[in-house]
Amino acid sequence: MKTLTLGITQFAASEDTAANLDAAERVLRAAAAKGAQVVCLQEMCSTLYFCRAEDPALFGLAEAIPGPATERFASVARELGVVVVLPLFERRAAGLHHNTAAVIDADGRYLGKYRKMHIPEDPGFHEKFYFAPGDLGYRVWETAYGRIGVLICWDQWYPEAARLAAMQGAEVLLYPTAIGWLESEREALGAAQHTAWETVQRGHAVANGCFVAASNRIGREGDTVSCGQSFVANPYGEVVARAPVGEETAEAVVCDLGQLEEFRNIWPFFRDRRIDSYGDILRRWIDEPAPPR
Amino acid sequence: MKTLTLGITQFAASEDTAANLDAAERVLRAAAAKGAQVVCLQEMCSTLYFCRAEDPALFGLAEAIPGPATERFASVARELGVVVVLPLFERRAAGLHHNTAAVIDADGRYLGKYRKMHIPEDPGFHEKFYFAPGDLGYRVWETAYGRIGVLICWDQWYPEAARLAAMQGAEVLLYPTAIGWLESEREALGAAQHTAWETVQRGHAVANGCFVAASNRIGREGDTVSCGQSFVANPYGEVVARAPVGEETAEAVVCDLGQLEEFRNIWPFFRDRRIDSYGDILRRWIDEPAPPR
Repeated sequence: MKTLTLGITQFAASEDTAANLDAAERVLRAAAAKGAQVVCLQEMCSTLYFCRAEDPALFGLAEAIPGPATERFASVARELGVVVVLPLFERRAAGLHHNTAAVIDADGRYLGKYRKMHIPEDPGFHEKFYFAPGDLGYRVWETAYGRIGVLICWDQWYPEAARLAAMQGAEVLLYPTAIGWLESEREALGAAQHTAWETVQRGHAVANGCFVAASNRIGREGDTVSCGQSFVANPYGEVVARAPVGEETAEAVVCDLGQLEEFRNIWPFFRDRRIDSYGDILRRWIDEPAPPR
Repeated sequence: MKTLTLGITQFAASEDTAANLDAAERVLRAAAAKGAQVVCLQEMCSTLYFCRAEDPALFGLAEAIPGPATERFASVARELGVVVVLPLFERRAAGLHHNTAAVIDADGRYLGKYRKMHIPEDPGFHEKFYFAPGDLGYRVWETAYGRIGVLICWDQWYPEAARLAAMQGAEVLLYPTAIGWLESEREALGAAQHTAWETVQRGHAVANGCFVAASNRIGREGDTVSCGQSFVANPYGEVVARAPVGEETAEAVVCDLGQLEEFRNIWPFFRDRRIDSYGDILRRWIDEPAPPR
Protein backbone atom coordinates (compact mmCIF):
# COMPACT_ATOMS: atom_id res chain seq x y z
CA MET A 1 0.00 0.00 0.00
CA LYS A 2 1.48 3.31 -1.08
CA THR A 3 0.50 5.97 1.41
CA LEU A 4 1.18 9.64 1.80
CA THR A 5 0.76 11.18 5.24
CA LEU A 6 -0.52 14.72 4.99
CA GLY A 7 0.00 17.31 7.67
CA ILE A 8 -2.73 19.92 8.05
CA THR A 9 -2.10 22.82 10.38
CA GLN A 10 -3.68 25.98 11.72
CA PHE A 11 -2.59 28.61 14.22
CA ALA A 12 -3.50 32.15 15.31
CA ALA A 13 -1.27 34.88 13.91
CA SER A 14 -0.29 38.21 15.43
CA GLU A 15 1.42 41.41 14.29
CA ASP A 16 4.77 39.87 15.29
CA THR A 17 6.27 38.24 12.19
CA ALA A 18 8.97 36.44 14.16
CA ALA A 19 6.37 34.94 16.47
CA ASN A 20 4.26 33.86 13.49
CA LEU A 21 7.19 32.09 11.91
CA ASP A 22 7.89 30.42 15.25
CA ALA A 23 4.27 29.27 15.38
CA ALA A 24 4.51 27.96 11.82
CA GLU A 25 7.62 26.00 12.77
CA ARG A 26 5.88 24.73 15.90
CA VAL A 27 2.90 23.27 14.02
CA LEU A 28 5.20 21.93 11.31
CA ARG A 29 7.29 20.09 13.89
CA ALA A 30 4.18 18.86 15.68
CA ALA A 31 2.69 17.48 12.47
CA ALA A 32 6.00 15.83 11.56
CA ALA A 33 6.21 14.30 15.03
CA LYS A 34 2.86 12.65 14.32
CA GLY A 35 4.20 11.21 11.08
CA ALA A 36 3.27 13.83 8.53
CA GLN A 37 5.36 13.63 5.35
CA VAL A 38 3.91 16.60 3.48
CA VAL A 39 2.92 19.57 5.64
CA CYS A 40 0.83 22.46 4.41
CA LEU A 41 0.99 25.73 6.32
CA GLN A 42 -1.72 28.39 6.23
CA GLU A 43 -1.90 31.20 3.68
CA MET A 44 0.64 33.98 4.32
CA CYS A 45 1.83 32.19 7.43
CA SER A 46 4.27 34.89 8.53
CA THR A 47 1.71 37.68 8.90
CA LEU A 48 -1.78 38.58 9.91
CA TYR A 49 -4.37 38.47 7.15
CA PHE A 50 -3.59 42.15 6.56
CA CYS A 51 -5.84 42.66 3.52
CA ARG A 52 -8.70 43.94 5.66
CA ALA A 53 -7.78 47.48 4.57
CA GLU A 54 -5.57 48.99 1.85
CA ASP A 55 -2.32 50.31 3.32
CA PRO A 56 0.82 50.75 1.19
CA ALA A 57 2.99 50.52 4.33
CA LEU A 58 2.13 46.84 4.55
CA PHE A 59 4.13 46.03 1.44
CA GLY A 60 7.05 46.17 3.88
CA LEU A 61 5.91 42.78 5.19
CA ALA A 62 6.77 41.06 1.92
CA GLU A 63 9.98 39.18 1.24
CA ALA A 64 11.70 37.48 -1.65
CA ILE A 65 11.02 33.83 -2.44
CA PRO A 66 13.37 32.12 -2.05
CA GLY A 67 14.53 34.29 0.82
CA PRO A 68 15.06 34.19 4.58
CA ALA A 69 11.85 32.36 5.51
CA THR A 70 12.30 29.84 2.71
CA GLU A 71 15.84 29.16 3.91
CA ARG A 72 14.76 28.74 7.50
CA PHE A 73 12.03 26.25 6.60
CA ALA A 74 14.27 24.45 4.12
CA SER A 75 16.57 23.71 6.99
CA VAL A 76 13.69 22.44 9.15
CA ALA A 77 12.34 20.38 6.24
CA ARG A 78 15.75 18.72 5.81
CA GLU A 79 16.11 18.08 9.53
CA LEU A 80 12.64 16.48 9.75
CA GLY A 81 12.62 14.87 6.32
CA VAL A 82 9.29 16.45 5.42
CA VAL A 83 7.97 18.29 2.38
CA VAL A 84 6.81 21.79 3.32
CA VAL A 85 4.33 24.06 1.57
CA LEU A 86 5.26 27.50 2.88
CA PRO A 87 2.85 30.33 1.96
CA LEU A 88 4.36 33.82 2.13
CA PHE A 89 3.74 37.39 1.01
CA GLU A 90 6.17 37.66 -1.90
CA ARG A 91 8.06 40.77 -2.91
CA ARG A 92 9.02 40.45 -6.55
CA ALA A 93 9.93 44.08 -7.21
CA ALA A 94 8.99 47.45 -5.80
CA GLY A 95 5.25 47.78 -6.36
CA LEU A 96 4.90 44.15 -7.50
CA HIS A 97 3.88 41.58 -4.95
CA HIS A 98 2.25 38.16 -4.97
CA ASN A 99 0.41 35.82 -2.66
CA THR A 100 2.71 32.84 -3.03
CA ALA A 101 3.57 29.41 -1.68
CA ALA A 102 7.10 28.04 -1.74
CA VAL A 103 7.49 24.28 -2.02
CA ILE A 104 10.41 22.62 -0.25
CA ASP A 105 11.27 18.96 -0.67
CA ALA A 106 12.06 16.59 2.19
CA ASP A 107 15.79 17.03 1.63
CA GLY A 108 15.50 20.80 2.01
CA ARG A 109 15.66 21.58 -1.69
CA TYR A 110 13.58 24.53 -2.82
CA LEU A 111 11.42 23.10 -5.63
CA GLY A 112 9.69 26.25 -6.78
CA LYS A 113 6.71 28.40 -6.04
CA TYR A 114 3.08 28.85 -6.91
CA ARG A 115 1.63 32.33 -7.21
CA LYS A 116 -2.08 32.61 -6.40
CA MET A 117 -3.91 32.90 -9.70
CA HIS A 118 -7.40 33.99 -8.56
CA ILE A 119 -7.39 37.19 -6.54
CA PRO A 120 -10.48 38.29 -4.58
CA GLU A 121 -11.57 41.83 -3.80
CA ASP A 122 -14.42 42.05 -1.34
CA PRO A 123 -15.23 43.87 1.90
CA GLY A 124 -12.51 42.76 4.32
CA PHE A 125 -10.53 41.01 1.58
CA HIS A 126 -8.77 43.69 -0.46
CA GLU A 127 -6.40 41.39 -2.24
CA LYS A 128 -6.46 43.05 -5.64
CA PHE A 129 -4.65 45.95 -4.00
CA TYR A 130 -1.88 43.82 -2.56
CA PHE A 131 -1.34 40.98 -5.00
CA ALA A 132 -0.69 40.87 -8.70
CA PRO A 133 -2.43 37.85 -10.23
CA GLY A 134 -0.14 34.85 -10.49
CA ASP A 135 1.77 34.43 -13.73
CA LEU A 136 3.29 31.00 -13.26
CA GLY A 137 0.16 29.02 -14.06
CA TYR A 138 -0.92 25.90 -12.22
CA ARG A 139 1.94 23.89 -10.78
CA VAL A 140 2.61 20.42 -9.47
CA TRP A 141 5.76 19.01 -7.95
CA GLU A 142 7.14 15.52 -7.71
CA THR A 143 8.24 15.37 -4.08
CA ALA A 144 9.88 12.66 -2.01
CA TYR A 145 6.44 11.36 -0.98
CA GLY A 146 4.14 12.05 -3.90
CA ARG A 147 3.10 14.45 -6.59
CA ILE A 148 1.46 17.52 -5.12
CA GLY A 149 -0.40 20.46 -6.57
CA VAL A 150 -0.59 23.72 -4.66
CA LEU A 151 -3.36 26.30 -4.97
CA ILE A 152 -4.18 29.15 -2.61
CA CYS A 153 -7.46 30.16 -0.94
CA TRP A 154 -9.68 31.96 -3.52
CA ASP A 155 -8.42 29.43 -6.10
CA GLN A 156 -10.41 26.85 -4.14
CA TRP A 157 -13.68 28.10 -5.66
CA TYR A 158 -12.50 27.44 -9.23
CA PRO A 159 -12.90 23.92 -10.64
CA GLU A 160 -10.67 25.00 -13.53
CA ALA A 161 -7.69 25.44 -11.19
CA ALA A 162 -8.14 22.07 -9.53
CA ARG A 163 -8.58 20.42 -12.92
CA LEU A 164 -5.41 21.94 -14.36
CA ALA A 165 -3.36 20.77 -11.38
CA ALA A 166 -4.91 17.30 -11.46
CA MET A 167 -4.26 17.03 -15.20
CA GLN A 168 -0.55 17.37 -14.39
CA GLY A 169 -0.81 14.27 -12.25
CA ALA A 170 -1.29 15.77 -8.79
CA GLU A 171 -2.26 13.06 -6.32
CA VAL A 172 -2.99 15.66 -3.67
CA LEU A 173 -4.21 19.24 -4.01
CA LEU A 174 -3.11 21.46 -1.12
CA TYR A 175 -4.93 24.69 -0.32
CA PRO A 176 -3.31 27.10 2.13
CA THR A 177 -6.23 29.30 3.10
CA ALA A 178 -7.37 32.36 5.04
CA ILE A 179 -11.13 32.13 5.06
CA GLY A 180 -13.15 33.69 7.81
CA TRP A 181 -16.52 34.96 8.73
CA LEU A 182 -17.31 38.65 8.71
CA GLU A 183 -18.85 39.54 12.07
CA SER A 184 -21.81 41.07 10.24
CA GLU A 185 -22.59 37.88 8.29
CA ARG A 186 -21.69 35.11 10.67
CA GLU A 187 -24.99 34.56 12.41
CA ALA A 188 -27.06 34.46 9.24
CA LEU A 189 -24.59 32.85 6.88
CA GLY A 190 -21.71 31.35 8.86
CA ALA A 191 -22.75 27.72 8.70
CA ALA A 192 -23.76 27.96 5.05
CA GLN A 193 -20.50 29.68 4.09
CA HIS A 194 -18.45 27.00 5.80
CA THR A 195 -20.46 24.30 4.04
CA ALA A 196 -19.88 26.00 0.70
CA TRP A 197 -16.14 26.33 1.32
CA GLU A 198 -15.64 22.73 2.33
CA THR A 199 -18.08 21.29 -0.22
CA VAL A 200 -16.59 22.90 -3.29
CA GLN A 201 -13.16 21.53 -2.39
CA ARG A 202 -14.58 18.08 -1.64
CA GLY A 203 -16.14 18.35 -5.10
CA HIS A 204 -12.70 18.93 -6.62
CA ALA A 205 -11.50 15.74 -4.93
CA VAL A 206 -14.35 13.81 -6.54
CA ALA A 207 -14.21 15.39 -9.99
CA ASN A 208 -10.48 14.73 -10.18
CA GLY A 209 -10.25 11.52 -8.15
CA CYS A 210 -7.54 12.85 -5.87
CA PHE A 211 -6.98 13.91 -2.26
CA VAL A 212 -7.62 17.50 -1.24
CA ALA A 213 -6.40 19.22 1.91
CA ALA A 214 -6.78 22.75 3.24
CA SER A 215 -4.85 24.47 6.02
CA ASN A 216 -6.77 27.50 7.22
CA ARG A 217 -6.24 30.19 9.85
CA ILE A 218 -7.85 30.48 13.29
CA GLY A 219 -8.59 33.38 15.59
CA ARG A 220 -10.03 36.84 15.33
CA GLU A 221 -8.38 39.55 13.24
CA GLY A 222 -10.39 42.78 13.26
CA ASP A 223 -13.97 42.05 12.19
CA THR A 224 -13.08 38.65 10.81
CA VAL A 225 -13.06 35.36 12.64
CA SER A 226 -11.16 32.70 10.74
CA CYS A 227 -13.16 29.52 10.52
CA GLY A 228 -10.31 27.05 11.03
CA GLN A 229 -11.57 23.54 10.24
CA SER A 230 -8.58 22.61 8.15
CA PHE A 231 -9.43 19.27 6.57
CA VAL A 232 -8.48 16.38 4.33
CA ALA A 233 -10.92 14.82 1.83
CA ASN A 234 -10.41 11.56 -0.03
CA PRO A 235 -11.26 10.97 -3.72
CA TYR A 236 -14.86 10.12 -2.74
CA GLY A 237 -15.16 13.58 -1.23
CA GLU A 238 -15.37 12.12 2.27
CA VAL A 239 -13.85 14.32 4.97
CA VAL A 240 -11.35 12.02 6.67
CA ALA A 241 -10.04 14.62 9.13
CA ARG A 242 -11.29 18.04 10.20
CA ALA A 243 -9.70 20.38 12.75
CA PRO A 244 -11.84 22.40 15.19
CA VAL A 245 -12.88 26.01 14.50
CA GLY A 246 -10.60 27.75 16.92
CA GLU A 247 -7.81 25.49 18.16
CA GLU A 248 -4.22 25.37 17.01
CA THR A 249 -3.89 22.10 15.15
CA ALA A 250 -1.15 19.93 13.71
CA GLU A 251 -2.69 16.75 12.39
CA ALA A 252 -1.18 13.90 10.38
CA VAL A 253 -3.59 12.08 8.07
CA VAL A 254 -2.62 8.88 6.27
CA CYS A 255 -3.85 8.91 2.66
CA ASP A 256 -3.91 5.59 0.80
CA LEU A 257 -2.89 6.47 -2.73
CA GLY A 258 -4.28 3.09 -3.83
CA GLN A 259 -7.72 4.57 -3.18
CA LEU A 260 -7.02 7.14 -5.88
CA GLU A 261 -6.20 4.38 -8.37
CA GLU A 262 -9.23 2.33 -7.37
CA PHE A 263 -11.55 5.35 -7.65
CA ARG A 264 -10.30 6.31 -11.09
CA ASN A 265 -10.46 2.74 -12.39
CA ILE A 266 -14.10 2.45 -11.35
CA TRP A 267 -14.96 5.98 -12.47
CA PRO A 268 -12.54 6.94 -15.24
CA PHE A 269 -13.68 10.53 -15.67
CA PHE A 270 -10.55 11.66 -17.46
CA ARG A 271 -11.20 9.17 -20.26
CA ASP A 272 -14.56 10.68 -21.10
CA ARG A 273 -13.88 14.42 -20.92
CA ARG A 274 -15.42 16.11 -23.99
CA ILE A 275 -12.41 18.27 -24.75
CA ASP A 276 -13.96 19.10 -28.12
CA SER A 277 -16.78 20.91 -26.31
CA TYR A 278 -15.06 22.99 -23.63
CA GLY A 279 -13.87 25.91 -25.72
CA ASP A 280 -16.29 28.40 -24.19
CA ILE A 281 -14.64 27.86 -20.78
CA LEU A 282 -12.15 30.43 -22.06
CA ARG A 283 -14.88 33.06 -22.28
CA ARG A 284 -15.92 35.35 -19.43
CA TRP A 285 -19.62 34.59 -19.83
CA ILE A 286 -21.84 33.34 -22.63
CA ASP A 287 -24.14 36.22 -23.38
CA GLU A 288 -25.99 34.63 -26.25
CA PRO A 289 -26.98 31.04 -25.61
CA ALA A 290 -27.42 28.86 -28.66
CA PRO A 291 -30.95 29.16 -30.08
CA PRO A 292 -33.36 26.35 -29.22
CA ARG A 293 -33.25 23.35 -31.53
CA MET B 1 -39.00 37.24 -3.36
CA LYS B 2 -38.63 35.48 -6.70
CA THR B 3 -38.92 31.76 -6.16
CA LEU B 4 -38.84 28.73 -8.37
CA THR B 5 -40.41 25.53 -7.07
CA LEU B 6 -38.51 22.52 -8.29
CA GLY B 7 -40.03 19.07 -8.58
CA ILE B 8 -37.71 16.13 -8.01
CA THR B 9 -39.01 12.68 -8.73
CA GLN B 10 -38.01 9.03 -8.68
CA PHE B 11 -39.82 5.79 -9.47
CA ALA B 12 -39.08 2.14 -10.19
CA ALA B 13 -39.17 1.17 -13.86
CA SER B 14 -40.12 -2.12 -15.47
CA GLU B 15 -39.90 -3.72 -18.91
CA ASP B 16 -43.31 -2.24 -19.72
CA THR B 17 -42.78 1.07 -21.49
CA ALA B 18 -46.41 2.09 -21.21
CA ALA B 19 -46.36 1.47 -17.48
CA ASN B 20 -43.16 3.47 -17.13
CA LEU B 21 -44.65 6.44 -18.92
CA ASP B 22 -47.70 6.14 -16.68
CA ALA B 23 -45.42 6.20 -13.64
CA ALA B 24 -43.59 9.22 -15.00
CA GLU B 25 -46.90 11.01 -15.46
CA ARG B 26 -47.95 9.95 -11.95
CA VAL B 27 -44.90 11.48 -10.25
CA LEU B 28 -45.11 14.55 -12.48
CA ARG B 29 -48.75 15.13 -11.46
CA ALA B 30 -47.92 14.45 -7.82
CA ALA B 31 -45.08 16.97 -7.83
CA ALA B 32 -47.25 19.54 -9.58
CA ALA B 33 -50.01 18.96 -7.03
CA LYS B 34 -47.47 19.93 -4.35
CA GLY B 35 -46.70 23.14 -6.18
CA ALA B 36 -43.75 22.18 -8.36
CA GLN B 37 -43.27 24.53 -11.31
CA VAL B 38 -40.33 22.79 -12.99
CA VAL B 39 -40.34 19.01 -12.78
CA CYS B 40 -37.36 16.84 -13.65
CA LEU B 41 -37.98 13.19 -14.48
CA GLN B 42 -35.35 10.47 -14.20
CA GLU B 43 -32.92 9.53 -16.97
CA MET B 44 -34.56 7.51 -19.77
CA CYS B 45 -37.84 7.55 -17.91
CA SER B 46 -39.71 5.32 -20.34
CA THR B 47 -37.45 2.28 -20.01
CA LEU B 48 -35.37 0.19 -17.69
CA TYR B 49 -31.73 1.20 -17.43
CA PHE B 50 -31.07 -1.30 -20.23
CA CYS B 51 -27.35 -0.59 -20.68
CA ARG B 52 -26.37 -3.42 -18.37
CA ALA B 53 -25.53 -5.50 -21.45
CA GLU B 54 -25.03 -4.76 -25.16
CA ASP B 55 -28.03 -5.88 -27.19
CA PRO B 56 -28.85 -4.39 -30.61
CA ALA B 57 -32.50 -5.39 -30.22
CA LEU B 58 -32.86 -2.72 -27.55
CA PHE B 59 -32.48 0.06 -30.07
CA GLY B 60 -36.14 -0.70 -30.73
CA LEU B 61 -36.94 1.09 -27.47
CA ALA B 62 -35.84 4.43 -28.85
CA GLU B 63 -38.16 7.05 -30.27
CA ALA B 64 -37.92 10.38 -32.03
CA ILE B 65 -37.75 13.61 -30.04
CA PRO B 66 -40.10 15.32 -30.45
CA GLY B 67 -42.30 12.26 -30.82
CA PRO B 68 -45.15 10.45 -29.10
CA ALA B 69 -43.83 10.71 -25.53
CA THR B 70 -42.92 14.36 -25.96
CA GLU B 71 -46.42 15.07 -27.26
CA ARG B 72 -48.06 13.22 -24.39
CA PHE B 73 -46.07 15.13 -21.77
CA ALA B 74 -46.49 18.44 -23.58
CA SER B 75 -50.19 18.00 -23.14
CA VAL B 76 -49.78 17.22 -19.43
CA ALA B 77 -47.39 20.16 -19.01
CA ARG B 78 -49.95 22.50 -20.56
CA GLU B 79 -52.76 21.08 -18.44
CA LEU B 80 -50.76 21.49 -15.21
CA GLY B 81 -48.88 24.65 -16.18
CA VAL B 82 -45.51 23.09 -15.35
CA VAL B 83 -42.18 22.94 -17.10
CA VAL B 84 -41.15 19.32 -17.74
CA VAL B 85 -37.71 17.87 -18.31
CA LEU B 86 -38.44 14.59 -20.05
CA PRO B 87 -35.46 12.23 -20.52
CA LEU B 88 -35.87 9.66 -23.27
CA PHE B 89 -33.89 7.22 -25.40
CA GLU B 90 -33.71 9.12 -28.70
CA ARG B 91 -33.72 7.56 -32.13
CA ARG B 92 -32.13 10.00 -34.56
CA ALA B 93 -31.53 7.62 -37.45
CA ALA B 94 -31.00 3.90 -37.89
CA GLY B 95 -27.84 3.10 -35.93
CA LEU B 96 -27.69 6.57 -34.38
CA HIS B 97 -29.17 7.06 -30.95
CA HIS B 98 -28.76 9.47 -28.07
CA ASN B 99 -29.45 9.72 -24.37
CA THR B 100 -31.56 12.85 -24.45
CA ALA B 101 -33.83 15.10 -22.44
CA ALA B 102 -36.68 17.05 -24.03
CA VAL B 103 -37.62 20.35 -22.40
CA ILE B 104 -41.27 21.39 -22.44
CA ASP B 105 -42.45 24.79 -21.25
CA ALA B 106 -45.41 25.35 -18.96
CA ASP B 107 -47.67 26.13 -21.92
CA GLY B 108 -46.83 22.80 -23.56
CA ARG B 109 -44.38 24.21 -26.08
CA TYR B 110 -41.47 21.94 -26.93
CA LEU B 111 -38.41 24.13 -26.28
CA GLY B 112 -35.70 21.81 -27.47
CA LYS B 113 -33.52 18.98 -26.28
CA TYR B 114 -30.21 18.26 -24.64
CA ARG B 115 -28.18 15.26 -25.75
CA LYS B 116 -25.94 13.77 -23.06
CA MET B 117 -22.41 14.91 -23.79
CA HIS B 118 -20.36 12.61 -21.50
CA ILE B 119 -20.95 8.93 -22.14
CA PRO B 120 -19.73 6.28 -19.68
CA GLU B 121 -18.63 2.73 -20.46
CA ASP B 122 -18.10 0.58 -17.41
CA PRO B 123 -19.21 -2.82 -16.11
CA GLY B 124 -22.99 -2.61 -15.96
CA PHE B 125 -23.07 0.75 -17.78
CA HIS B 126 -22.41 0.07 -21.47
CA GLU B 127 -23.51 3.43 -22.74
CA LYS B 128 -20.87 3.88 -25.42
CA PHE B 129 -22.59 1.06 -27.28
CA TYR B 130 -26.03 2.64 -27.14
CA PHE B 131 -25.48 6.39 -27.28
CA ALA B 132 -23.58 8.61 -29.65
CA PRO B 133 -22.02 11.49 -27.71
CA GLY B 134 -24.20 14.59 -27.71
CA ASP B 135 -23.56 17.11 -30.47
CA LEU B 136 -25.77 19.98 -29.35
CA GLY B 137 -23.42 21.31 -26.68
CA TYR B 138 -24.54 22.61 -23.30
CA ARG B 139 -28.01 24.12 -23.31
CA VAL B 140 -30.12 26.38 -21.17
CA TRP B 141 -33.72 27.41 -21.64
CA GLU B 142 -35.67 30.42 -20.53
CA THR B 143 -38.87 28.85 -19.20
CA ALA B 144 -42.01 30.30 -17.68
CA TYR B 145 -40.47 30.02 -14.20
CA GLY B 146 -36.74 30.53 -14.65
CA ARG B 147 -33.70 29.78 -16.72
CA ILE B 148 -32.76 26.13 -16.51
CA GLY B 149 -29.79 24.10 -17.67
CA VAL B 150 -30.18 20.38 -18.29
CA LEU B 151 -27.38 17.83 -18.05
CA ILE B 152 -27.65 14.06 -17.78
CA CYS B 153 -26.13 11.59 -15.31
CA TRP B 154 -22.44 11.02 -16.22
CA ASP B 155 -22.25 14.74 -17.07
CA GLN B 156 -22.65 15.33 -13.34
CA TRP B 157 -19.01 14.41 -12.70
CA TYR B 158 -17.71 17.13 -15.02
CA PRO B 159 -17.31 20.65 -13.64
CA GLU B 160 -16.81 21.85 -17.21
CA ALA B 161 -20.39 20.89 -18.13
CA ALA B 162 -21.90 22.64 -15.11
CA ARG B 163 -19.77 25.71 -15.78
CA LEU B 164 -20.78 25.95 -19.43
CA ALA B 165 -24.47 25.77 -18.52
CA ALA B 166 -24.07 28.29 -15.68
CA MET B 167 -22.19 30.66 -17.99
CA GLN B 168 -25.33 30.79 -20.13
CA GLY B 169 -27.24 32.09 -17.14
CA ALA B 170 -28.79 28.91 -15.78
CA GLU B 171 -30.30 29.55 -12.36
CA VAL B 172 -30.90 25.84 -11.86
CA LEU B 173 -28.99 22.85 -13.18
CA LEU B 174 -31.13 19.74 -13.52
CA TYR B 175 -29.60 16.27 -13.67
CA PRO B 176 -31.83 13.35 -14.69
CA THR B 177 -29.83 10.39 -13.46
CA ALA B 178 -29.56 6.62 -13.31
CA ILE B 179 -26.90 5.94 -10.75
CA GLY B 180 -26.86 2.73 -8.81
CA TRP B 181 -24.70 0.44 -6.80
CA LEU B 182 -23.29 -2.73 -8.29
CA GLU B 183 -24.14 -5.61 -5.97
CA SER B 184 -20.45 -6.54 -5.86
CA GLU B 185 -19.34 -3.10 -4.68
CA ARG B 186 -22.18 -1.90 -2.50
CA GLU B 187 -21.02 -3.16 0.89
CA ALA B 188 -17.49 -1.82 0.58
CA LEU B 189 -18.11 1.32 -1.43
CA GLY B 190 -21.83 2.09 -1.43
CA ALA B 191 -21.80 4.90 1.11
CA ALA B 192 -18.64 6.46 -0.33
CA GLN B 193 -20.01 6.31 -3.87
CA HIS B 194 -23.21 8.03 -2.86
CA THR B 195 -21.23 10.71 -1.03
CA ALA B 196 -19.10 11.28 -4.12
CA TRP B 197 -22.14 11.52 -6.39
CA GLU B 198 -23.97 14.00 -4.24
CA THR B 199 -20.88 15.99 -3.25
CA VAL B 200 -19.61 16.68 -6.74
CA GLN B 201 -23.01 18.08 -7.74
CA ARG B 202 -23.23 20.16 -4.56
CA GLY B 203 -19.80 21.45 -5.56
CA HIS B 204 -21.18 22.57 -8.92
CA ALA B 205 -23.89 24.53 -7.06
CA VAL B 206 -21.19 26.32 -5.04
CA ALA B 207 -18.71 26.92 -7.84
CA ASN B 208 -21.45 28.40 -10.00
CA GLY B 209 -23.64 29.97 -7.33
CA CYS B 210 -26.81 28.27 -8.57
CA PHE B 211 -29.30 25.61 -7.57
CA VAL B 212 -28.69 21.99 -8.54
CA ALA B 213 -31.22 19.18 -8.56
CA ALA B 214 -31.00 15.52 -9.50
CA SER B 215 -33.83 13.06 -10.19
CA ASN B 216 -32.52 9.50 -9.92
CA ARG B 217 -34.01 6.03 -10.29
CA ILE B 218 -35.00 3.59 -7.56
CA GLY B 219 -35.29 -0.18 -7.39
CA ARG B 220 -33.29 -3.19 -8.47
CA GLU B 221 -32.51 -3.87 -12.13
CA GLY B 222 -30.33 -6.96 -12.54
CA ASP B 223 -27.18 -6.60 -10.41
CA THR B 224 -27.72 -2.90 -9.90
CA VAL B 225 -29.67 -1.21 -7.16
CA SER B 226 -30.42 2.41 -7.98
CA CYS B 227 -29.54 4.65 -5.09
CA GLY B 228 -32.50 7.02 -5.32
CA GLN B 229 -31.87 10.01 -3.05
CA SER B 230 -32.92 12.58 -5.62
CA PHE B 231 -32.04 15.94 -4.11
CA VAL B 232 -31.91 19.70 -4.38
CA ALA B 233 -28.89 21.75 -3.31
CA ASN B 234 -28.80 25.52 -2.88
CA PRO B 235 -25.92 27.80 -3.99
CA TYR B 236 -24.13 27.15 -0.68
CA GLY B 237 -24.09 23.44 -1.53
CA GLU B 238 -26.54 22.71 1.26
CA VAL B 239 -28.89 19.82 0.56
CA VAL B 240 -32.32 21.33 1.10
CA ALA B 241 -34.28 18.20 0.17
CA ARG B 242 -33.31 14.56 -0.29
CA ALA B 243 -35.57 11.65 -1.22
CA PRO B 244 -35.15 8.21 0.38
CA VAL B 245 -33.12 5.41 -1.23
CA GLY B 246 -35.97 3.21 -2.37
CA GLU B 247 -39.30 5.01 -2.27
CA GLU B 248 -41.21 6.54 -5.15
CA THR B 249 -40.99 10.29 -4.62
CA ALA B 250 -42.52 13.45 -6.00
CA GLU B 251 -41.28 16.37 -3.98
CA ALA B 252 -41.71 20.11 -4.52
CA VAL B 253 -38.89 22.29 -3.22
CA VAL B 254 -39.14 26.07 -3.09
CA CYS B 255 -35.90 27.72 -4.24
CA ASP B 256 -35.41 31.39 -3.42
CA LEU B 257 -33.66 32.81 -6.46
CA GLY B 258 -32.70 35.83 -4.33
CA GLN B 259 -30.29 33.50 -2.55
CA LEU B 260 -28.46 33.03 -5.85
CA GLU B 261 -28.07 36.80 -6.23
CA GLU B 262 -26.97 37.23 -2.61
CA PHE B 263 -24.43 34.42 -2.89
CA ARG B 264 -22.88 35.77 -6.08
CA ASN B 265 -22.73 39.33 -4.75
CA ILE B 266 -20.82 38.19 -1.68
CA TRP B 267 -18.68 35.73 -3.60
CA PRO B 268 -18.43 37.00 -7.20
CA PHE B 269 -16.51 34.04 -8.62
CA PHE B 270 -17.37 34.80 -12.24
CA ARG B 271 -15.65 38.19 -11.97
CA ASP B 272 -12.31 36.63 -11.07
CA ARG B 273 -12.09 33.68 -13.43
CA ARG B 274 -8.61 33.61 -14.99
CA ILE B 275 -9.80 32.95 -18.50
CA ASP B 276 -6.30 33.72 -19.77
CA SER B 277 -5.01 30.65 -17.94
CA TYR B 278 -7.53 27.91 -18.73
CA GLY B 279 -6.37 26.93 -22.20
CA ASP B 280 -5.04 23.53 -21.14
CA ILE B 281 -8.57 22.52 -20.09
CA LEU B 282 -8.97 21.68 -23.77
CA ARG B 283 -6.22 19.04 -23.54
CA ARG B 284 -6.82 15.42 -22.58
CA TRP B 285 -4.05 15.42 -19.98
CA ILE B 286 -0.89 17.44 -19.37
CA ASP B 287 1.91 14.97 -19.84
CA GLU B 288 4.76 17.38 -19.32
CA PRO B 289 4.27 19.74 -16.38
CA ALA B 290 6.08 23.04 -16.58
CA PRO B 291 9.63 22.74 -15.23
CA PRO B 292 10.22 24.05 -11.69
CA ARG B 293 10.93 27.76 -11.43
